[in-house]
Parts: sequence; C-alpha cells; structure tokens
Amino acid sequence: MDVFQAIETRYSHKEKFLPHPVSKEHLEKIAFAGLTTPSGANAQSVYAILLPDRESVQKLCDIVYHPGLATAPVAIALFTDSKTQVMDVNFELQDYSASCQNILLAATALGYSSLWLDYPFFNEGNQKSACALMKVPDNFHLHVVVPIGIPDGEGSRREKRPISERFHYFNG
Amino acid sequence: MDVFQAIETRYSHKEKFLPHPVSKEHLEKIAFAGLTTPSGANAQSVYAILLPDRESVQKLCDIVYHPGLATAPVAIALFTDSKTQVMDVNFELQDYSASCQNILLAATALGYSSLWLDYPFFNEGNQKSACALMKVPDNFHLHVVVPIGIPDGEGSRREKRPISERFHYFNG
Repeated sequence: MDVFQAIETRYSHKEKFLPHPVSKEHLEKIAFAGLTTPSGANAQSVYAILLPDRESVQKLCDIVYHPGLATAPVAIALFTDSKTQVMDVNFELQDYSASCQNILLAATALGYSSLWLDYPFFNEGNQKSACALMKVPDNFHLHVVVPIGIPDGEGSRREKRPISERFHYFNG
Repeated sequence: MDVFQAIETRYSHKEKFLPHPVSKEHLEKIAFAGLTTPSGANAQSVYAILLPDRESVQKLCDIVYHPGLATAPVAIALFTDSKTQVMDVNFELQDYSASCQNILLAATALGYSSLWLDYPFFNEGNQKSACALMKVPDNFHLHVVVPIGIPDGEGSRREKRPISERFHYFNG
C-alpha cells in the first residue's frame, strides 16, 4: 500500500477484532517495520515481543482488560532497554513512538486495524505484572501493546481539528 | 511508494543537501502526513511550521549550525502545545515522535532525504532563540527540525544490530 494511503486510512481501533488469524509472516513483517526506525544516538533501544495467538494475547488481557486485547488474534509489545541510553538526554519515549508509528502503518498496509494501547501500562502494578509475564530483563520498560487484526465492524473515530489549523508558514 | 519500501529506504541524512528545490505541494503533503497521526488522549498536540525556502532555513541555521540546515531547500519544525495535555500523563514526546516518523516516511516516498534533528534544541538558549524566530506562543515547545531535500551524495549510514536480536516470541 502507498505510504500516503496508509497514513490516511490508519485509525485507532478501540473496539473488538474478528477471530480471523494473522499469519506469522505478516506479524513478523509488521514487527520488523517497527524495528526499522531512527533512534536517538543510534541506540536502537526498542525491543519487541510478538504475541502470535489468542492464548498469549489473552494472558496479557488477564492483567489489563481491553476489548482489543480480549479479541485480537495477535499483538506486539514494545519495550525499551534503559541501558542503551548513553547521552545526557533519554530518547526512550521518542524511540518507541517512532517504532509504534511504523507498526501501525505496516499493519494498515497489510489490511489490519490496530491500536496504540499505552495507558494501562503507566500503572506500576500492571507494568510489573506484564513485564513478569513476558519475562523481560529488569532494565526493560513496557511502553505499548498493539493489538492487530481484522476489525469487528467499522470502529469509532474521534473528531479531529482541521489540519490547516495546525500548521503555518515561517514568517520570521 | 509502498509503505515497506519507504520504511526500508529511509535513513538519517546527516550531511549536505543539493540546492534542488522542494515544491510547496510536496512540502505541504509531507507536513500533512506528519499531522495525520494518533495522539495521546486525542489531544492533537503537534503543530508544524513550514520553512519553504533557503532564506527561512538559513535563519534557523544562524541559531543552530548544522550541515543539513546550511544547505536544505526546505525544513519542517515540529512543536507541541503543552496546553493540550489534560491527563495525568503527558504525551507530547510520543505525539511529536509519531508525527516526525510520518514526515520522514512521506519525504522518503517523494524521493527526498531527511533528518530527525532534535539534539540542538535541547539547549535552552537555542530553544528560546528558535521559538522567538518562529514566533510561536509561550506554551509551545520546539522538538525537532527536519531538513528535507535531495542529498548531496550517498550519505553515511550508522551500523545497526541485526533486527533478529531485537525481537522474541512470547514465551509465557
């Protein structure tokens, strides 16, 4: 799919997915896209864990309930490794966000819907439980889990301000 | 250009650009792509200022010297408005990073090279001078300036670890 088409058709799917499977080939293609991003100081701080079936996604949903996690056939969890940060500025948020955006576009390009699901993991208890479930090292932080699949229905869309209100030409 | 091709061919162009112009149509198409992203709590916190010619880019380069800013025919500056943040978590870094990633992919898709140039603006003096030059409100923060154009030469590439070292399957 064309880049601009993917950017325009991507949306945040906050509801249920159909049980239609996502192949391992597609899941890896999406995850690889997410790991092919720039990173602050070239630290390549982002790591992905692939949840390739309902069983694994359900285990995460048992910690953090969400309609997407309760139904998605696959998901990708993105972490950063704090040990990769070597400058006086920490780039972990920027790094994972660029990765997540690529994952959303790659999923869209392959015909799936997806969601940048981060909020539940700001909770310290959820963060610890999810990291323990996925057996990541202590220096890893879970930022987002992206459920991916064929949407069960159209999916709601939130209202957006006109883009014309959000850019200006330089007038220095 | 196909999404996966854009993701794979995008790179950080840290050197000079050729004087070949970038049309207003292309510049706006790239900026619009950058403003078509998810945002935390749908705040749409990101704002862009388009620098459409050498003269405007040079004024920024007079504050922060960089070979890319010294030669690029156009650039896009991305800000967030802190007043848009209404939750207990601040999403400005995530929001602008998703926007920046879209800008890099859109520029690549149209045949240009680009750079996520953020580091100079962490300096408080540079931040203040650049915001004053671009006449943004006090509650705006400048996160990144992306120079865009045809590269003057191949451009260096930093070494990357194999992606296979950066993902694992769930093993819970």
